[in-house]
Amino acid sequence: MPKRYSQALLLCSVIAVLLSGCIFDTTKTSETAATTNPPKETRLNQPAVPPIMKRNGNQVSIEMTAQITNIEISKGETYNAWTFNGTVPGPVLRIKEGDVLTFTLKNKDPNLAHSMDFHAVHAAPSAKFIDVQPNEQGTFTYPANTPGVFMYHCGTKPVLAHIANGMYGMIIVEPKNGYPTDPMVDREYTLVQSEWYEEHDYEQFLNGEPEYVVFNGTDFELMEKPLLAKVGDIVRLYISNAGPNEVSSFHVVGTTMDAVYIDGNPSNVLKGLQTVLLPASGGAVVEFTVTEEGDYPIVTHQFDHASKGAVGILRVTHDGLDHGGQASGH
Amino acid sequence: MPKRYSQALLLCSVIAVLLSGCIFDTTKTSETAATTNPPKETRLNQPAVPPIMKRNGNQVSIEMTAQITNIEISKGETYNAWTFNGTVPGPVLRIKEGDVLTFTLKNKDPNLAHSMDFHAVHAAPSAKFIDVQPNEQGTFTYPANTPGVFMYHCGTKPVLAHIANGMYGMIIVEPKNGYPTDPMVDREYTLVQSEWYEEHDYEQFLNGEPEYVVFNGTDFELMEKPLLAKVGDIVRLYISNAGPNEVSSFHVVGTTMDAVYIDGNPSNVLKGLQTVLLPASGGAVVEFTVTEEGDYPIVTHQFDHASKGAVGILRVTHDGLDHGGQASGH
Amino acid sequence: MPKRYSQALLLCSVIAVLLSGCIFDTTKTSETAATTNPPKETRLNQPAVPPIMKRNGNQVSIEMTAQITNIEISKGETYNAWTFNGTVPGPVLRIKEGDVLTFTLKNKDPNLAHSMDFHAVHAAPSAKFIDVQPNEQGTFTYPANTPGVFMYHCGTKPVLAHIANGMYGMIIVEPKNGYPTDPMVDREYTLVQSEWYEEHDYEQFLNGEPEYVVFNGTDFELMEKPLLAKVGDIVRLYISNAGPNEVSSFHVVGTTMDAVYIDGNPSNVLKGLQTVLLPASGGAVVEFTVTEEGDYPIVTHQFDHASKGAVGILRVTHDGLDHGGQASGH
Repeated sequence: MPKRYSQALLLCSVIAVLLSGCIFDTTKTSETAATTNPPKETRLNQPAVPPIMKRNGNQVSIEMTAQITNIEISKGETYNAWTFNGTVPGPVLRIKEGDVLTFTLKNKDPNLAHSMDFHAVHAAPSAKFIDVQPNEQGTFTYPANTPGVFMYHCGTKPVLAHIANGMYGMIIVEPKNGYPTDPMVDREYTLVQSEWYEEHDYEQFLNGEPEYVVFNGTDFELMEKPLLAKVGDIVRLYISNAGPNEVSSFHVVGTTMDAVYIDGNPSNVLKGLQTVLLPASGGAVVEFTVTEEGDYPIVTHQFDHASKGAVGILRVTHDGLDHGGQASGH
Repeated sequence: MPKRYSQALLLCSVIAVLLSGCIFDTTKTSETAATTNPPKETRLNQPAVPPIMKRNGNQVSIEMTAQITNIEISKGETYNAWTFNGTVPGPVLRIKEGDVLTFTLKNKDPNLAHSMDFHAVHAAPSAKFIDVQPNEQGTFTYPANTPGVFMYHCGTKPVLAHIANGMYGMIIVEPKNGYPTDPMVDREYTLVQSEWYEEHDYEQFLNGEPEYVVFNGTDFELMEKPLLAKVGDIVRLYISNAGPNEVSSFHVVGTTMDAVYIDGNPSNVLKGLQTVLLPASGGAVVEFTVTEEGDYPIVTHQFDHASKGAVGILRVTHDGLDHGGQASGH
Repeated sequence: MPKRYSQALLLCSVIAVLLSGCIFDTTKTSETAATTNPPKETRLNQPAVPPIMKRNGNQVSIEMTAQITNIEISKGETYNAWTFNGTVPGPVLRIKEGDVLTFTLKNKDPNLAHSMDFHAVHAAPSAKFIDVQPNEQGTFTYPANTPGVFMYHCGTKPVLAHIANGMYGMIIVEPKNGYPTDPMVDREYTLVQSEWYEEHDYEQFLNGEPEYVVFNGTDFELMEKPLLAKVGDIVRLYISNAGPNEVSSFHVVGTTMDAVYIDGNPSNVLKGLQTVLLPASGGAVVEFTVTEEGDYPIVTHQFDHASKGAVGILRVTHDGLDHGGQASGH
């Protein structure tokens, strides 16, 4: 890490830890941390709240929170996450090409500034993706003129920490004229891939291996509560890779992709892919046909990452309802 | 790794080790392993056998084996690999768009279940990519309706171990109407990139750096026995990146790519690339012109990986025959 | 690393160290190195010189140097780099599709051979990308018939060391008929992403994490001297990812990309991207509109890398001049 940053970041981290009472677990500081940090059960855990979204013509107002909430990232394993609205990923937002967004961020985190960087909009970051201080709120306006599947995330420094700790989500900007394949699609789902590292450990964010790589924030939900489809369906997935660090080799076992729209733009179509490569922060619309009853795993084909949790199940039945299956242990 | 899996995987690994007699070399278990595992020379080493392929109209039957075979991955360095048919990568399969495959897997591994996941077909994985038990065989039928260059691999859990230990290969599905550039291509070759880690070391597969990154299973064969072409040829490569973990920045030194078909689909054409990025499990058809006599290295331009073996030589001569060259030490 | 290479490379490295007096800092050799290597201030530091470029019709002659020069890669941190012409990256070269290049490399490094591998040309590497010995020069001729944004680099073995130590740059081959978007573009810049590892530490190049990931060789210049644009401008960036090891998830905060030409080829156009993924050695032309006054960070969205320095600022003002801003501390 560049040294001029590392000191500032270290300072920020230390302040953050002291203020928020998070356990900052490194070999160097664990002894001190163990004695000065409050026990896990007393950490801040603000309940999830839905975002508020209102439309008036093409004027869309959205209100969201920055808050600290415990997230179960694996069975019995909780991460004291920095979140939008108390979930990781944050809520999926869906607007239309040509909308003008008036966005309000209420920062309910008592200790740290947070902010919002929408990849979907045109805005001067130094004016409109700026920090909102603890217990304050900020409102910003910008147009969303590019259709697609975009990442949003907290852009407060150090950005790596704010993303790694959970502050990201997906915003879909529906194309004005839709996708050429809209009439064929039978059902659709959203998936966000991301990594979890040792809790609040900035050195691990920077140089370590992820402990978990997951879809939609956990490594188990999409195994236990599979996505569903009917035999013969064309399924559309809106996918986004939040990172913060890794690329994704997104793959659905048992089928090939009839169409892939890179970053969700109708102009960027690829056909017959087995696997689509997403950059960190990249997105896509992925469509495929399921021809037989059974369970179809969804993975990143970087199998170190799939082995760390990035596996979901798409369950295909004759009627599109869940009748149990291998994957869920039934 | 998610903890609920790690225990199951550890158990699987331990059982696999005990049963197969593989040296499972970790710092934690090496002491025990050193005393309980048989010496290297007594390990199972089943001779390679060709696959059996028969065609009747568009009905294609393929019979392959899962087996344990020593693979020389570098000069004097042998890996006791899990293989299809005794080679790594397994045999290149070549069928046509619209074929219906009847595939039989004979599992000659006395200790572990194996399976076959063809990226080229439409099939319910929970019904048709299922485990075949030791000394048994399974037969499955599915259509191959998407043209391209696809990966196949063992899909038995833990998938990461089955791929990292050698169970992968390439299946080409020729497009019904060919590629627009078919008339120009003078010769073609197949290349599969993959990684080798510390032998049978699951922790290294998950979190380590590869020891070797190679084309077609070894780090020397394509240096000593170069691919050949004639001055002026347009050369086509069918390429696949088996991973299991890394992406590939595929590059041919001394030329640019006239055409690249992403995942080998005639619809997905890019022109004039210097380097094509393959996801883990991604493929491509790559075509380029060689204009002068000499040796053209083929690499992944991720040079840590090229330095670990992923270098091949394309030798270009006036008549397309090998007259020796720098690269092989002549 | 394949063993047959590792010994040769180790030998090369040792010779290089002894000859050049570089500090070759490994745990194994540091004791010896500390006593046998000259102190930092006495290391070779050849002043930067401009390349010499002459055109006669479509015949272009270029003369460049290989030389050893101290590069300030971060504030107060100097790397004794292997360079082209004394800068890292080397000078940006700009020629036209259809040019024939006559290239001369003057090797001013008294100790090591160097060479030039242009990704933009057709040439037999074993004849025209060959080593030029210390204090000698070599001249080579080849055509540049593919338009785009290409990497050039030293191709002398071990290539990884020559790239990691600084020998790379960008060559733009302007398309004969331009880009369809040429009339709309208001201003353009060039950016080369690359990694710095522990100085001259081959083991770190092979298996380590980068210490810095930077644009145009340093982690501070594009923060302190931002790129400039005017409100409403369409900005074009020519970008190249030199690696040596990592891919880039290139992103401009606050906008989406109107057009992206993969590897700079007018045929390979993508629309509306939030982020473009570059392989190691890949390039692109990226165009976007800036609609408001303010600072727009440019990053790789692999945020471990951005946190290590790969952040630049594009400053947008009403008149396109720099009036100071947040990012530079004003």
